[in-house]
Amino acid sequence: MIDLHEAQRVILQATPVLGRESVPILDALRRVIAQDITAVDDLPESDISAMDGYAVRQTSLYGVSRHNPVRLRIIGESPAGKPCGAIVGDGEAVRIMTGGLVPEGADTVVKIEETTEGGGYVICTNNPGRGGGIRFKGDSLKKGDVVLRAGEVISPLEVGALASLRRAYVYVHRKPIVAILSTGDELSDFHEPSSSGKAMCSNLYALAAQAMESGAKPLCLGIVQDNLQAQQTMLHEALRADVIITSGGTSRGKYDLVHKALAALGIQMRFSTIFAKPGKPTIFGTIGRNLIFGLPGNPSATMLSFEQFIKPALLKMTGHQNGLYCSTGNLNAPKLKDAFLSVDSFNHEQGGNKEHRRASQVPLGGRLHRQGPAVDSNTGLLKAASH
Amino acid sequence: MIDLHEAQRVILQATPVLGRESVPILDALRRVIAQDITAVDDLPESDISAMDGYAVRQTSLYGVSRHNPVRLRIIGESPAGKPCGAIVGDGEAVRIMTGGLVPEGADTVVKIEETTEGGGYVICTNNPGRGGGIRFKGDSLKKGDVVLRAGEVISPLEVGALASLRRAYVYVHRKPIVAILSTGDELSDFHEPSSSGKAMCSNLYALAAQAMESGAKPLCLGIVQDNLQAQQTMLHEALRADVIITSGGTSRGKYDLVHKALAALGIQMRFSTIFAKPGKPTIFGTIGRNLIFGLPGNPSATMLSFEQFIKPALLKMTGHQNGLYCSTGNLNAPKLKDAFLSVDSFNHEQGGNKEHRRASQVPLGGRLHRQGPAVDSNTGLLKAASH
Repeated sequence: MIDLHEAQRVILQATPVLGRESVPILDALRRVIAQDITAVDDLPESDISAMDGYAVRQTSLYGVSRHNPVRLRIIGESPAGKPCGAIVGDGEAVRIMTGGLVPEGADTVVKIEETTEGGGYVICTNNPGRGGGIRFKGDSLKKGDVVLRAGEVISPLEVGALASLRRAYVYVHRKPIVAILSTGDELSDFHEPSSSGKAMCSNLYALAAQAMESGAKPLCLGIVQDNLQAQQTMLHEALRADVIITSGGTSRGKYDLVHKALAALGIQMRFSTIFAKPGKPTIFGTIGRNLIFGLPGNPSATMLSFEQFIKPALLKMTGHQNGLYCSTGNLNAPKLKDAFLSVDSFNHEQGGNKEHRRASQVPLGGRLHRQGPAVDSNTGLLKAASH
Repeated sequence: MIDLHEAQRVILQATPVLGRESVPILDALRRVIAQDITAVDDLPESDISAMDGYAVRQTSLYGVSRHNPVRLRIIGESPAGKPCGAIVGDGEAVRIMTGGLVPEGADTVVKIEETTEGGGYVICTNNPGRGGGIRFKGDSLKKGDVVLRAGEVISPLEVGALASLRRAYVYVHRKPIVAILSTGDELSDFHEPSSSGKAMCSNLYALAAQAMESGAKPLCLGIVQDNLQAQQTMLHEALRADVIITSGGTSRGKYDLVHKALAALGIQMRFSTIFAKPGKPTIFGTIGRNLIFGLPGNPSATMLSFEQFIKPALLKMTGHQNGLYCSTGNLNAPKLKDAFLSVDSFNHEQGGNKEHRRASQVPLGGRLHRQGPAVDSNTGLLKAASH
């Protein structure tokens, strides 16, 4: 018999971090990035206009105001993606669109709202100052800047940042496949007639839902009979998964059966019962890199055991480094200021996020997720055993 | 100009709650159920054994203990789903499995661990008391009991409860389809060559990720040129969605263009600017039951506007009644005690869940989700406008 804390330690020690797969950035949402993201170019790559307006020389605008407008000759146009060949001199202007390259000679963009165009000339009624209206090369990001580090969780903010860097795909830790099976001749499933007089294997579905919420892919293998050969065959099938969960079959006779079936497959048993109720008859072992959990059949005990033992392992497998599933605001880009950083810094300020950061410091032995079933403070059982 | 609070009120008033669709229970996870779930039978339907053991008459066990065992004759077997015809008399026992029907005459189940079987007899070393080891008809649930009410959010707990009631499918509010398009000749997308010299339409992807996190299905329509005909065509296409979001095109000239294109499609404009920065140039209108949002092009302003204006609408559309996306522990089944209620009551006790319940009372005008971008407390802009 080992206590809850020791059991969690044993499980995490045996749990591998899974390898990476390349996915489209929207599929990476809420997953853990498995590569550093570095800017391969300055952003923007050149000096561009931040608005629709007119690119001019600062020297053309001295003293200009609403009451002292200036009239400049238009010598060309610079829409986004189509550089303008003209060189802007004193008294000249180039019509420019948001994102358009600032033409040679120009050092200022007057926004369209402060101009009137007509007859090949533009009248400007304001001087925004040298560099006004321009996003300079590297303003948002310098080539080589690390924007995201491996191990961070992708939120919508990071999705936007990856897109702005033209990263269509990104490496994330792959999702563990979790094979789930219920043992017991007394159980039936949806594909059987409801008149069987047997109880539904509801644990299968509750566990599958918990696996999904932990970032894993459930593989519902169904019910396996109380029969050694059937259990061995099903468990052997299940070895294609990263994690195997059996529910039920931990009463005396059946327990021996599950034990025997696992032994025949060469399980390295790490522990086979723990000092905590409900959840006492819990098995944990490994076959190679596969994790095998044998949970009790009682629905609430099963769900609690999942939260306490399996969820931390799934989080580790998917690259989470502190047992915190939901996270946000990981963007490591102090210079991406006019795009995404502003949102990031908002997050740093608000209370909700601070809670998150505190939560991230809760050790793995603690409560890992604010949702889902958790331990009772009244019964003094699982929870009491953990402290 | 209207303030943030009034804008949110106008949006929610114009937002319909979407109809329902039938989905497998695992696909219903974190969605809002659109039907009451009532028990159509008692659960269990008959008196069944809660364990593997022997069904006996209480009168056979008077005075039985480890030091005073009793020897009973085995007259039959009752596995789950296969009723045993025998009637149990004094001095007799029926071998019974978990879930097996308690045979006529028996009123107690002695668990297998407290017995020894041999030669057609079983020796019992304990008396669990009358009714011990039995789950009586209707113990967990009575026919007609309401287990889940329309409007509640499906967590793994509810998935398990639905499975135990043999509900393979359940009605939930359907997911809104959110068409997202970016306007601007200065933008490019992943399917274009990266050498275009144009900026990536990163807003498309950030907004799609936000829509996904709000329980909606994004429909990324891409970039639409700054051209009235192109905008009208694209927006007309987008009307197949429930919600249309345009990003960008709210500077003077472009703003007029989006306005004109929407006017040509018969938009009923609800407001076209709000008193809050960033996010000032925000358009909201309706075409029939379609909601149309025109957001500014600046990435952080766009994401903030989504959280403030669109997310509450999406939550309402998907049936959430209090603007709270994540919820748990809704199981309305005080009698489902030996199965799922125990987990539910745990949830009621623990601190994390109490936070949730408090959060659910935050009015829609407040912050709706602890994750994702939110308003800045320093700039005094969006947030200041809302209070």
